[in-house]
Amino acid sequence: MISVVLLGGGNVAHHLTQAFLACKDVDLKQLYARNASSIANFQNEISITDDLNLLADADVYIIAISDDAISSISSQLPENKLVTHTSGSVAMNSLNNTGRKGIFYPLQSFSKTKPVNFSEIPICIEAEQDEDLKILEQLAQLISPKVYQISSDQRSKLHVAAVFVNNFTNHMYKIGNDICKQYDVPFEVLLPLIQETAAKIQHVAPNEAQTGPAKRKDQETIQRHLNLLNTKQKEIYQLITKSIQNG
Amino acid sequence: MISVVLLGGGNVAHHLTQAFLACKDVDLKQLYARNASSIANFQNEISITDDLNLLADADVYIIAISDDAISSISSQLPENKLVTHTSGSVAMNSLNNTGRKGIFYPLQSFSKTKPVNFSEIPICIEAEQDEDLKILEQLAQLISPKVYQISSDQRSKLHVAAVFVNNFTNHMYKIGNDICKQYDVPFEVLLPLIQETAAKIQHVAPNEAQTGPAKRKDQETIQRHLNLLNTKQKEIYQLITKSIQNG
Ligand SMILES: NC(=O)c1ccc[n+]([C@@H]2O[C@H](COP(=O)([O-])OP(=O)(O)OC[C@H]3O[C@@H](n4cnc5c(N)ncnc54)[C@H](OP(=O)(O)O)[C@@H]3O)[C@@H](O)[C@H]2O)c1
Ligand SMILES: NC(=O)c1ccc[n+]([C@@H]2O[C@H](COP(=O)([O-])OP(=O)(O)OC[C@H]3O[C@@H](n4cnc5c(N)ncnc54)[C@H](OP(=O)(O)O)[C@@H]3O)[C@@H](O)[C@H]2O)c1
Repeated sequence: MISVVLLGGGNVAHHLTQAFLACKDVDLKQLYARNASSIANFQNEISITDDLNLLADADVYIIAISDDAISSISSQLPENKLVTHTSGSVAMNSLNNTGRKGIFYPLQSFSKTKPVNFSEIPICIEAEQDEDLKILEQLAQLISPKVYQISSDQRSKLHVAAVFVNNFTNHMYKIGNDICKQYDVPFEVLLPLIQETAAKIQHVAPNEAQTGPAKRKDQETIQRHLNLLNTKQKEIYQLITKSIQNG
Repeated sequence: MISVVLLGGGNVAHHLTQAFLACKDVDLKQLYARNASSIANFQNEISITDDLNLLADADVYIIAISDDAISSISSQLPENKLVTHTSGSVAMNSLNNTGRKGIFYPLQSFSKTKPVNFSEIPICIEAEQDEDLKILEQLAQLISPKVYQISSDQRSKLHVAAVFVNNFTNHMYKIGNDICKQYDVPFEVLLPLIQETAAKIQHVAPNEAQTGPAKRKDQETIQRHLNLLNTKQKEIYQLITKSIQNG
């Protein structure tokens, strides 16, 4: 049985709380948020607090608060304890607690209102000490079969890669949507293709999955497409086409 | 009962044949391919030919062959018949038959080896004459509930939008994969995020779904990311970041 105190009242804290509560081998001892109202929905199931001086004793402290507040919060946590955060982009040594440090980073895009299935969410863990890594591995495995040991250095690279496959992909959807609006075509016609594109990559390497006029070097189609785009769309179309063609 | 002759032995012909064969209200009379071997797998279920002079009589002829061969094939089809093609990027008036013209464009990415569920595939139809549009609508509805009347002009725009959401999105996956390889992080860690990104857009407008450092104008993170990228990746990161920030 691993005991946990979770800090944060946002998207990640919300879903981690639910995952831990659903797991009988995790003893979720307490929830902290600076605004107790953000975690009040859990108060019948678990002890909550908005006072860092009243934190319970636990094996692991998980800080699921905004990136730029992790350092300052961590310096106020109990001494000689294993303290972790859930961020993809903050280094482990940004933690300012006096004791042991670790990372417990669930690699998925969370929002409070959207239910998640933790058994499909990769959890990236890291710790300074081997024993702590084992504790985090155990804890992570209790909520997900996909546990990866990733260093802070690797995690920062993973985060850039995630920006491409998530944020930038979404921007491709946005431009597709803009083009549809511009020409009065229903964007929904493209939704099955969007799903298929993501589904394909689950089994096929991105290189092999690549199709389209850029890949085929079909200059005639490329030119016809460019004529339909505005200046900004054109710039992006040309740069990505060039990048696809350079392999 | 609508009778159909289907031309082509590739990805689209393969899946359309299966869909029509599975539908009792479609009379798939014949399959044509210039290399009979490419459609030989269907010869026990349906009449096949490699000779355009031996085409059967049917209500609708569907040309599912390579874009640049559509014009020439269409000029060799029976007179006074409704002839259609399945391409997203070829105009209806590229059809060179003497009779009626139409479009029967299934908007999805097909490959022979990957099973498809036609009930989730949008079919974009067009015809010169109202009666023909009705025939194509009936035929399309027999294999999919998602039937859209889209003009050649709109279809050419839809095709550009599809390049963004499919080809360019796949290239974002490719760059993510490159970064992972470069820094020895398993790309598979990103697969659930990729699926979630596509799943989110099924319900949320791309504008609202946008997250990340570009959207937050988090210059510090953006700079850190740029330092990890090679020249080409950097160029794409900067351009898309700018585009996200300009809304
Ligand atoms: N959302 C995701 O998709 C995702 C995925 C993986 C990892 N992460 C990481 O998980 C962490 C939390 O993200 P989130 O999406 O849950 O954020 P969020 O929904 O914006 O919630 C942030 C939480 O941090 C609290 N907070 C901010 N500044 C604070 C301070 N100075 N002192 C105390 N509490 C403070 C906020 O309190 P108030 O409500 O009072 O402002 C809120 O409870 C971040 O490190 C993020 O990088 C997020
Ligand atoms: N694949 C997709 O994801 C997709 C999606 C929607 C629409 N489409 C459209 O559907 C059509 C077919 O695409 P596909 O993916 O099925 O192509 P494909 O797999 O490459 O097959 C092309 C077929 O056309 C035949 N062909 C090529 N040139 C010919 C000629 N001069 N005379 C007779 N037959 C010829 C080929 O015969 P050989 O085998 O002898 O070369 C082959 O049977 C295209 O218009 C395409 O734009 C494709």
